[in-house]
Amino acid sequence: NTEKTSRTAHPDDSVVLVSGVPVGGGHFAVMAGPCSVESRTQVCDIALAVKAAGATLLRGGAFKARTSPYAFQGLELEGLSYLQAAREVSGLPIVSEILSPLQVELFAATVDLIQIGARNMQNVELLREVGRIKTPVLLKRGLASTVAEWLLAAETILAQGNPNVILCERGIRTFENATRNTLDISAIPAVKRLSHLPVLVDPSHASGLAWMVPSLSLAAAAAGADGLLIEVHDNPDLALCDGAQSLTPEEFGALMGKLRTLLEIR
Amino acid sequence: NTEKTSRTAHPDDSVVLVSGVPVGGGHFAVMAGPCSVESRTQVCDIALAVKAAGATLLRGGAFKARTSPYAFQGLELEGLSYLQAAREVSGLPIVSEILSPLQVELFAATVDLIQIGARNMQNVELLREVGRIKTPVLLKRGLASTVAEWLLAAETILAQGNPNVILCERGIRTFENATRNTLDISAIPAVKRLSHLPVLVDPSHASGLAWMVPSLSLAAAAAGADGLLIEVHDNPDLALCDGAQSLTPEEFGALMGKLRTLLEIR
Amino acid sequence: NTEKTSRTAHPDDSVVLVSGVPVGGGHFAVMAGPCSVESRTQVCDIALAVKAAGATLLRGGAFKARTSPYAFQGLELEGLSYLQAAREVSGLPIVSEILSPLQVELFAATVDLIQIGARNMQNVELLREVGRIKTPVLLKRGLASTVAEWLLAAETILAQGNPNVILCERGIRTFENATRNTLDISAIPAVKRLSHLPVLVDPSHASGLAWMVPSLSLAAAAAGADGLLIEVHDNPDLALCDGAQSLTPEEFGALMGKLRTLLEIR
Amino acid sequence: NTEKTSRTAHPDDSVVLVSGVPVGGGHFAVMAGPCSVESRTQVCDIALAVKAAGATLLRGGAFKARTSPYAFQGLELEGLSYLQAAREVSGLPIVSEILSPLQVELFAATVDLIQIGARNMQNVELLREVGRIKTPVLLKRGLASTVAEWLLAAETILAQGNPNVILCERGIRTFENATRNTLDISAIPAVKRLSHLPVLVDPSHASGLAWMVPSLSLAAAAAGADGLLIEVHDNPDLALCDGAQSLTPEEFGALMGKLRTLLEIR
Repeated sequence: NTEKTSRTAHPDDSVVLVSGVPVGGGHFAVMAGPCSVESRTQVCDIALAVKAAGATLLRGGAFKARTSPYAFQGLELEGLSYLQAAREVSGLPIVSEILSPLQVELFAATVDLIQIGARNMQNVELLREVGRIKTPVLLKRGLASTVAEWLLAAETILAQGNPNVILCERGIRTFENATRNTLDISAIPAVKRLSHLPVLVDPSHASGLAWMVPSLSLAAAAAGADGLLIEVHDNPDLALCDGAQSLTPEEFGALMGKLRTLLEIR
Repeated sequence: NTEKTSRTAHPDDSVVLVSGVPVGGGHFAVMAGPCSVESRTQVCDIALAVKAAGATLLRGGAFKARTSPYAFQGLELEGLSYLQAAREVSGLPIVSEILSPLQVELFAATVDLIQIGARNMQNVELLREVGRIKTPVLLKRGLASTVAEWLLAAETILAQGNPNVILCERGIRTFENATRNTLDISAIPAVKRLSHLPVLVDPSHASGLAWMVPSLSLAAAAAGADGLLIEVHDNPDLALCDGAQSLTPEEFGALMGKLRTLLEIR
Repeated sequence: NTEKTSRTAHPDDSVVLVSGVPVGGGHFAVMAGPCSVESRTQVCDIALAVKAAGATLLRGGAFKARTSPYAFQGLELEGLSYLQAAREVSGLPIVSEILSPLQVELFAATVDLIQIGARNMQNVELLREVGRIKTPVLLKRGLASTVAEWLLAAETILAQGNPNVILCERGIRTFENATRNTLDISAIPAVKRLSHLPVLVDPSHASGLAWMVPSLSLAAAAAGADGLLIEVHDNPDLALCDGAQSLTPEEFGALMGKLRTLLEIR
Repeated sequence: NTEKTSRTAHPDDSVVLVSGVPVGGGHFAVMAGPCSVESRTQVCDIALAVKAAGATLLRGGAFKARTSPYAFQGLELEGLSYLQAAREVSGLPIVSEILSPLQVELFAATVDLIQIGARNMQNVELLREVGRIKTPVLLKRGLASTVAEWLLAAETILAQGNPNVILCERGIRTFENATRNTLDISAIPAVKRLSHLPVLVDPSHASGLAWMVPSLSLAAAAAGADGLLIEVHDNPDLALCDGAQSLTPEEFGALMGKLRTLLEIR
């Protein structure tokens, strides 16, 4: 019951085009940027910095699905407009998280890649709605979802008619508490064997620890991932959200150097 | 940051009134019925049978959040109308699962208790929308959500203005595979200590095994739960959904007898 | 491959006799006492107190398997001799944890019931050695062992010739951190269906929280457990080990009263 | 309470010498061989094959800690003698698993590196006994042990006087069932930051899937591991134990080629 996502049905790697940027099939994508969009200046500055270091897309949260109703919920519409401004100055396509089927039209008109977060991986109405458009979708794995369930969530989107799905492993929930979540590195070869869809890794959310992001990024590339989603903030200590897991632009630049060397021999 | 759900703020047990049926504060609720509404006759017959055995509410799924897009998705609007018919013949208030913020008006006009399923416990837009009405909400615990996160999801509803929330533990995801999920019985005393909200147990989804439902139901009552959510089907072998975990009306009746004896000495 | 532990091979409940005290087959056992034996006076006083409240065995650790090499490791031989003294004054059989195959003779000569702790459930040489004697064995479930693996560990003992095995569920490791471990209440009906061996519950180690022990004890009895293992300390605040999960003799007495009422109607 | 294993106490990487072969501090070790020693010919042939491909140690099980008492338990003493024969023909130091404190003298006299398996990571008497000799110890992480508990188990060995401990991550138990266990790749950078001890990865036990071993091996090297433990069998289909996760010598040779390229740029 995963006929459309299955590699049996579609032996070659799918390449998803995000406003001209190819993802998958040998095209390694690096999506970088702040957890939350905080101001026009912040997101534009980070966009230029990550582009200079080699990022291929800009990420940034405008609508935030926070666990507590009293935490910062994002700049919402204003945040989306700042992301669009950053796209204009940097030329990088933008990816941001959607929270509701009511926002599908808005996101389709605004961003290049619509992110469905881990908390909404089994929000079946949202999956169906983004399946009815053609904008590419970045589908994060649920915190406690098996690889099989994750591919069924992707299947729900493809079954409605949208083939442009990119998967993203972002850590699963286990007993270990040395890291925020446990990066399931095996999910990369598992997905590549079962499905033709591109699969990225988000080492920032997986670990919750900026100092661990470079090791995990290199491991993901070595394991065969099609790209990375990395949080970068110009001042992690003052970030409104997830500062402890954000790289500075300098750290991101250093990581990109190592990554290029590794990708050359892959 | 759980000020409205916290027992500190509200030392006495909350009693949530579901169309006249009290839940919590010593009022033990038993919500029984089929996983999916399959026909008018089916749901009416089961409603009368569970009422005769002592159930206080009728449960039944009309919109189903299935993992696979190719599984039976429920009778949808037709299913809701059959539930209403069953309410009329039995006098039992009805509870059914909502999937999208777009359905809030529909559900508020149709059911007595709106269920938010485990897959949507962190669907923050849905939580906010049901927070804006007064219809009682049954909030199931997410498969991999901590008790603290579950109470924050409840807080999201209460923070919008709807105080009528009933919690429901339905098993968490662990390594054990003898049961479908692992019933976290400790969550009952944990929630009762932290919060004033009523908390039920769903032994059918927790175990996935009909023969285990009676033991787990009695354990839940002994641990201090405020009620149960139990799947009952007149012909489990032919059920369109989750037959393996459904009791027959006879088995449900036998369980109700034991439960009454236990509740008397509690 | 669980032929000797299987209920198929042995349809009736096994009753294990621990120095005259029957466990299983309707005989509910309550094993209570301190986490660690701390002094002769301490353990004798607690023995008399728990006996007065209705306990049927005395538990106490002499050799402790602590995670840190720098934590208190128990009074060792001296601890065993104090337990023997407490047996003499109270008449209660004693249970204590063994750590090594080298200690089998010592324990067989000293205690009435040899406990194998969760950390050693898959210490196969230890299982084999206690399988070669006839002293009853209390086999705790490993922190991350499935019910199937737990029964195979019991099978390893029975396969060597010792049929006197009592199982004990003591919580499994999950993502939830509201409790020290997660009591798997479903393991009780699961084991009762698969095996004829008696199965106890240890709510003290499962939760790590004294205030939660009464609820979990009642739930265990309601779910069909054959007994309980409960930590009792006359001064939990000063306990050398696990004070936070120990009941006072008064709290234990109150729990025993509720338990008797529940067992009467079971 | 991890003073001897901590990097604070010992800022430089430790290099453990295994009969002349350095492990750690930039020396990448590859330990390869069959799950179980099956015959003299088998293990000698595999030893020569893995040596030719670049392995630095030979692994092979003689005493097996199987979950079922009816599974193949290994060739025991005979198996150790075949490993010694293979050491002679290949020149590779040998590593094999110990099961009991009673075997410490035997193993110290026979093997170059004593393995403590995941099931015995908290077998405290065994840890203490291998702490009293100087033979290097390969300490595998327990199935459900945190990084902190794993380092405390190592500390138990070091506290007795044996500083020659090599850690090995071999997958943890989670809800995911696409793989046998879940390789916790984050444990590598976590251990390297907390401790000076070398840390290896066992991708064979972590995944249980031979086809996944190459991806995970490269990921481990990229993440900073000090070596690998890999199962190699000349005829996986006929292996008496864990054939599904064993590479053929040819597959192992191909992996070693890729690994060398990656290590050069690391």
